[in-house]
Amino acid sequence: MLLTLLTASCAQTSAPVSEGDAALSVIMNRRSVRTFSGEKLSQEQIDMLLKAAMAAPTDGNVQPWEFVVVTDKDIVEAVFGQGRRADMYRNAGAVIIVCGHTTRLRIPRGEPDAAPVETPNGSWYEDCSCAAENLLLAAEAQGLGAVWMSAYPNEQKMAGIVEYFHLPADVLPLAIIPVGYPAGDEQPKDKWAPEKVHYNKW
Amino acid sequence: MLLTLLTASCAQTSAPVSEGDAALSVIMNRRSVRTFSGEKLSQEQIDMLLKAAMAAPTDGNVQPWEFVVVTDKDIVEAVFGQGRRADMYRNAGAVIIVCGHTTRLRIPRGEPDAAPVETPNGSWYEDCSCAAENLLLAAEAQGLGAVWMSAYPNEQKMAGIVEYFHLPADVLPLAIIPVGYPAGDEQPKDKWAPEKVHYNKW
Repeated sequence: MLLTLLTASCAQTSAPVSEGDAALSVIMNRRSVRTFSGEKLSQEQIDMLLKAAMAAPTDGNVQPWEFVVVTDKDIVEAVFGQGRRADMYRNAGAVIIVCGHTTRLRIPRGEPDAAPVETPNGSWYEDCSCAAENLLLAAEAQGLGAVWMSAYPNEQKMAGIVEYFHLPADVLPLAIIPVGYPAGDEQPKDKWAPEKVHYNKW
Repeated sequence: MLLTLLTASCAQTSAPVSEGDAALSVIMNRRSVRTFSGEKLSQEQIDMLLKAAMAAPTDGNVQPWEFVVVTDKDIVEAVFGQGRRADMYRNAGAVIIVCGHTTRLRIPRGEPDAAPVETPNGSWYEDCSCAAENLLLAAEAQGLGAVWMSAYPNEQKMAGIVEYFHLPADVLPLAIIPVGYPAGDEQPKDKWAPEKVHYNKW
């Protein structure tokens, strides 16, 4: 119901909507878009997607993300031109691969003067998931569409990306996000499920 | 710079701001808030946080999330009343624990008529991270503050939550999010790092 209310209040009237309500409307109305017009994105649009992604919170403010932005049609074809989703990738304005460093440098516990040591980063996929969600929301906010195609933890999908782009040894791809101008009629889902909320006890 | 521009355009003028720009402003200006006034949240505020969380995308639309919402001050004290962050939890209006099902039911591949089998869900922490990020943004959008305190993959932190709340066998806590009225001066960070963007090749 809230979804409907927010949609109605933002889409139909010219009455002022608060910044907060507008943001909530974008969150509630974001949908997965898999059908694109083929139109290119501007550099400003791409920058905004990436700035939103990098505004995500990260454990210990490590910001373990890296982004491979594929706009070259030959590379899109080489990497994503097979399979039943090939047209989705072909018609996107860009394909953004959200990657993360799976290790981080840490000062050994109890040894404040020691040199930092490379250790596994157990939060990289959480941090990069937040970045990817921000990117999806920033697409919606700009009137674009996008969808999260999973890479991690699928070994085969990750290996293809790692190999083609020669990712550094500790970097893995988390999500492959085609972004573009929507050309279909994809709608947001109402996923509100109050039975999944447990007050003070399970 | 964009951060500054968005802040300026939304905070200082009464000129109409598009829904999209307002949403981008909330994404860019969200900050981690760890200082709260002690004021309670309304049911409407809590519902909005949870609805935003459940609007996140999930792999195969599985929606593996569950939410434990702690508003009972005795329970907050029992679970979070120790340690250097105790006051943060005490003064939050609610502590929302974002949990996820680590397994999912799947029809065995190539056996469309078979009964679904419980299998590991390798995407639960990505899906639930998106839900948690939406929740953080929905707090910011409502003029509230929040911060992601990690549970997963810290065995000790997870065990305390699992035990106290008797979480079901396949459910783990991902993030512990105190939400409330900000009482400090926490500011957003500018994390824009163009060197983390790789066009068409690493």
